[in-house]
Amino acid sequence: MVTELETRIRRRLDSLTKPPGSLGRLEEIALQVGLVQGTDMPTIGRKAMLLFCADHGVVEEGVSPFPQEVTAQMVANFRAGGAAITVLCRQYGIEPVIVDIGVGRPTRNFTREPAMSKEEAQRAIETGIQHADGGDVLGAGEMGIGNSTAAAALLCAFTGISPIEAAGRGTGLDDAGVARKADVIARALALHRPNPKDGPKEAMRALAALGGREIAAIVGLILGAAQKRRVVVLDGFISCSAALVVRAMDPAALDYVIYSHRSAERGHQWMLESLGARPLLDLDMRLGEGSGAAIGISLVESAVRLYREMSTFDSAGVSTAAEKPAVSPTVSAQ
Amino acid sequence: MVTELETRIRRRLDSLTKPPGSLGRLEEIALQVGLVQGTDMPTIGRKAMLLFCADHGVVEEGVSPFPQEVTAQMVANFRAGGAAITVLCRQYGIEPVIVDIGVGRPTRNFTREPAMSKEEAQRAIETGIQHADGGDVLGAGEMGIGNSTAAAALLCAFTGISPIEAAGRGTGLDDAGVARKADVIARALALHRPNPKDGPKEAMRALAALGGREIAAIVGLILGAAQKRRVVVLDGFISCSAALVVRAMDPAALDYVIYSHRSAERGHQWMLESLGARPLLDLDMRLGEGSGAAIGISLVESAVRLYREMSTFDSAGVSTAAEKPAVSPTVSAQ
Repeated sequence: MVTELETRIRRRLDSLTKPPGSLGRLEEIALQVGLVQGTDMPTIGRKAMLLFCADHGVVEEGVSPFPQEVTAQMVANFRAGGAAITVLCRQYGIEPVIVDIGVGRPTRNFTREPAMSKEEAQRAIETGIQHADGGDVLGAGEMGIGNSTAAAALLCAFTGISPIEAAGRGTGLDDAGVARKADVIARALALHRPNPKDGPKEAMRALAALGGREIAAIVGLILGAAQKRRVVVLDGFISCSAALVVRAMDPAALDYVIYSHRSAERGHQWMLESLGARPLLDLDMRLGEGSGAAIGISLVESAVRLYREMSTFDSAGVSTAAEKPAVSPTVSAQ
Repeated sequence: MVTELETRIRRRLDSLTKPPGSLGRLEEIALQVGLVQGTDMPTIGRKAMLLFCADHGVVEEGVSPFPQEVTAQMVANFRAGGAAITVLCRQYGIEPVIVDIGVGRPTRNFTREPAMSKEEAQRAIETGIQHADGGDVLGAGEMGIGNSTAAAALLCAFTGISPIEAAGRGTGLDDAGVARKADVIARALALHRPNPKDGPKEAMRALAALGGREIAAIVGLILGAAQKRRVVVLDGFISCSAALVVRAMDPAALDYVIYSHRSAERGHQWMLESLGARPLLDLDMRLGEGSGAAIGISLVESAVRLYREMSTFDSAGVSTAAEKPAVSPTVSAQ
């Protein structure tokens, strides 16, 4: 059903000095942001990148080429402004907000027991919800050595695909490493037998069993954004695993989500298909941190600025398209 | 052959605090800009968007739903800052440079005679060459009602595809309009019999016969950028038709080109395939003006900033990936 607000936004889009529809996906984004904010004059004022950082017990299974201490080292790199995400935030005027939600306090090894208790997962979700206040547009960023294994396990749990299909190279595993990662996930699924289609309570159990605190926080960020009518720009494989969890808990909250990019991490394609998502960018990136989301935020800002700042045909005195192109008499006579 | 410079640039890329290759196409772009500028520390200082504006005699054949006066009206809209390209230039800190190269002085109707004399085309190329001084990175923008017909005619001339395949909706033609446009192009090809594979002189004749002054100026912009070792970011269908001309005149100049986006104008796909180009963005845009190139420039800036500003593993004290992931003794014992 097309709402009166949607009609008004589309009417303005068609009044701007451009052929109708010629801004393509940027027009869709302007419409989405307007609907999210509930206004025909949406704004992108404060832009924030939430960087949820946490460690993972499953790292002891050898699922990452990087040692666990890199999580803390990269948090220091975030603070010093030398990480990719902080460079991009500087360029695009995005405020990076570093949220230590478990650095040096890893979750438990989920091949042996649930990664988190339900209370721990719930607290991480609450942290995410609180940070939905951070800006008019919120980027979902993260850091956590081992978290592509957690995200791949959630992908299996929430879509039913096999660990072999879900496991990717992450930060750079070789073929043997990917096979080990798939085996780790298979063992975790056999242990926890997640069944998230049985409703929000089971979805929560799956998140606690297989997820990480930063993934749970992104679940909360999306839920919080939906409460506060703000747009969340997701990054790649890790943040989209949170979207799978949200869908099982509160599918309407995904209306507040913009998918920034298609990651080169192989399981991401599965996630996007399952979510019915068509991301804005496809740059073969697979860094995480929120790097794709930062660029995505710049596109969301472009969409909203174009919508707000372009002249209309009337205001600029530009002639509109004719119903039929004018054909010169000479040609008509041929 | 890998040059010593390329080796140095790749070594720095791999020293930055990210998994090797994980910035995907942004790493390729950083490398390209370094090679163009001839340095392992490239800079993006001044960003300029050249907006070459001109009118087209072929408009009298009814090839556009917009009347010719819209070219001048849109130039006024550029000056007032209300056009899409000027909004994007403001956001991304790009200087818009409006170059009136024939507004109100249309080329001749190329279904009857060559659009330009060779001298006129040469002068337009020279104008483009001069503007290659405008910035460290140069966007190729344009405005000219009717210029998607000129670009489609050049596409046919330089790649051999048929007018039916090359003609698209432009600013919004209906099916009958597209058929008329294809017929106009077919008549022009029958009249001028372009044969640009016969070398630069014939390429020049084809450009003069079928092109527009803004397209010739973009040819010059690319040639000038190659002389001055600057990067040119092309937009969509119109500016890529200039790249086809450049290829026939001086193919090495295309090393200085970055393709920003895949336009929704149907012939653009053919152009990109012919040029072996994989653009950075695919946002269903088909506005022209340089709108895709402006966003492309922001990505080029991201690539160079990441390359310049990210910490290295050494400088940030971040541990590098192990040759083999560390597997915990417990797991090894299983």
